[in-house]
Amino acid sequence: MNVRLTIQYDGTAYHGYQIQPNGITIQGVLEKALKMLTGENIILVGCGRTDAGVHAIKFTCNFHTNAKIEPTKYKYALNSRLPQDIRCIDSMMESDDFHSKKSAKGKTYIYRIYNAEFQSAFEKNFSWHYKFPLDIEKMKTAAKPFLGEHDFVGFAASGFSVKTTVRTIYDIKIEKENNIITISVTGNGFLYNMVRIIVGTLVYAGGGKIDCCDMQEIIDSCDRTRAGITAPSQGLFLKEVYYG
Amino acid sequence: MNVRLTIQYDGTAYHGYQIQPNGITIQGVLEKALKMLTGENIILVGCGRTDAGVHAIKFTCNFHTNAKIEPTKYKYALNSRLPQDIRCIDSMMESDDFHSKKSAKGKTYIYRIYNAEFQSAFEKNFSWHYKFPLDIEKMKTAAKPFLGEHDFVGFAASGFSVKTTVRTIYDIKIEKENNIITISVTGNGFLYNMVRIIVGTLVYAGGGKIDCCDMQEIIDSCDRTRAGITAPSQGLFLKEVYYG
Repeated sequence: MNVRLTIQYDGTAYHGYQIQPNGITIQGVLEKALKMLTGENIILVGCGRTDAGVHAIKFTCNFHTNAKIEPTKYKYALNSRLPQDIRCIDSMMESDDFHSKKSAKGKTYIYRIYNAEFQSAFEKNFSWHYKFPLDIEKMKTAAKPFLGEHDFVGFAASGFSVKTTVRTIYDIKIEKENNIITISVTGNGFLYNMVRIIVGTLVYAGGGKIDCCDMQEIIDSCDRTRAGITAPSQGLFLKEVYYG
Repeated sequence: MNVRLTIQYDGTAYHGYQIQPNGITIQGVLEKALKMLTGENIILVGCGRTDAGVHAIKFTCNFHTNAKIEPTKYKYALNSRLPQDIRCIDSMMESDDFHSKKSAKGKTYIYRIYNAEFQSAFEKNFSWHYKFPLDIEKMKTAAKPFLGEHDFVGFAASGFSVKTTVRTIYDIKIEKENNIITISVTGNGFLYNMVRIIVGTLVYAGGGKIDCCDMQEIIDSCDRTRAGITAPSQGLFLKEVYYG
C-alpha cells in the first residue's frame, strides 16, 4: 500500500528534511516513528528537501508498506509518537505510482521578512530581520520579470546536479502587514536555494542596492554574482505542493 | 534619572518575569544586562509579573540610575546584550515619580487558542491547543457579564494577598481567524491567573460545558469552583500597559 502524509514542521531544531549521518532530521524522526508503528524499515519519499532551519506548512511525502493500518489512521498514530514541532496533518491512501517528488506539478514557498529597527522576540526563528527601509512597490516591480519560463542558473547555489536549470514561475505575491513582509512564490520547481536568492535580490531592489528596472537583464545574464544575497533559511516556509 | 523600558519577550524559556533564586527569569536577565551597562546594581520595577511560559508584547518596567547614559540609547545598548527572545523595543526618560506598577491605569492581555484537531507545529509555545469545537457566538454572549466592576474572587488563584478583589473589565473582544481564536481582555487590573480563568470559563461556555446564560450568576457567586479551568500559560500575552 502507498500511503501519503502531509507533514507540518518547525525546522528550527533540525538539520533539514533529508536524513544524514550527523544531526537530527525531519525524515529521520518520521522514519523512526513509522518503524515503531509498522515494524518495517520505511523509506520515505519526500517532495523535495528543505535546509536546516527551513519550515514547512504542508510538506508531502509517501511510503510503501505491507502494514495492515488504515491509511487515514496514520495521522493520529504518528502525532502521538512525534515531537510537537513535527505534526502529521493528513494521511491517505494513494495509487501505487504516486511519487511525492516525481508526481509534483508545482510548489508554493513563502518567505517572511521582519522589517523594523529591532527584531521581534517572537519572530527570530520565523523571519529574516531586515532593519533598513524596503520599498514594497519597487519589490513588486522587480518581481515581474521573474514570471514565466527562464533559465534560473544565476539564482541557484552551486553543488547540486540537475538536468536543466530552466524553471517556470507562475506567481509572486508581495504583501506587508504591520512589520512583516511576506513574499509568496509559486512555480513548477525550484533550484537549490532559488527562492532564497530571489528573495535576497528582491530585498536588494526594495532597498535600492539594485535598480528594479535592471532585473530582466540580471535574470537573462545567468550570472549568480549579479543577483542579490541568499536570504537566511529561517524565513522560508514550504507552503504547499501541487499534484495533478 | 528614572528610565522607562518597553520590553517584548517570548516567555517559553523563562521561569516567569519576577526574579527568583532558582531558574532564569526575564527580570534577572534584564538586571544583569543593565548592570553591565551602568555598573550599578539596578532594581527593575515591573508593571506586574508574568508566570512561566507567559509572553509579553509590550511589558513596561523602570529603574532609577545615576549612569550618564542617554535614556533613548538604552534600547540599542540592551538589545546587543540580551538574548534574542527578550527585546527592548523602547526606552525613554520618565518623571521621578513614575512607577511601572503603581502608575498603571490598565492593561490589555490577549489569549490565543488553536482550535483544530491537531496542534500546529508553529503554535505549541504560543497557544492553547483545544481540539473540540467552540461556538464563538456563545463565547461572546458569555463574555458580556464580565464587563464592568465586579468582585472577581471566583476568578483568582489562591495564594496571593491583595487589598481588594474588585476589578473593572472595560472590554473583551473575541475573534477567529483560520484556526486561531484570540481573546483580548482590557481592565484596570487583574488578579492572579484571572485572565487565564476567564478564558477557561469562556472556553467551557463555547464548548457547552457551561450554559452561557449562567455566566452572570457564576460571577456573582464568587465561587472559584463554579468557573472553568485555568487556561495554560503559553497562550497568554501581556499586550499593553496604559498610563495616565
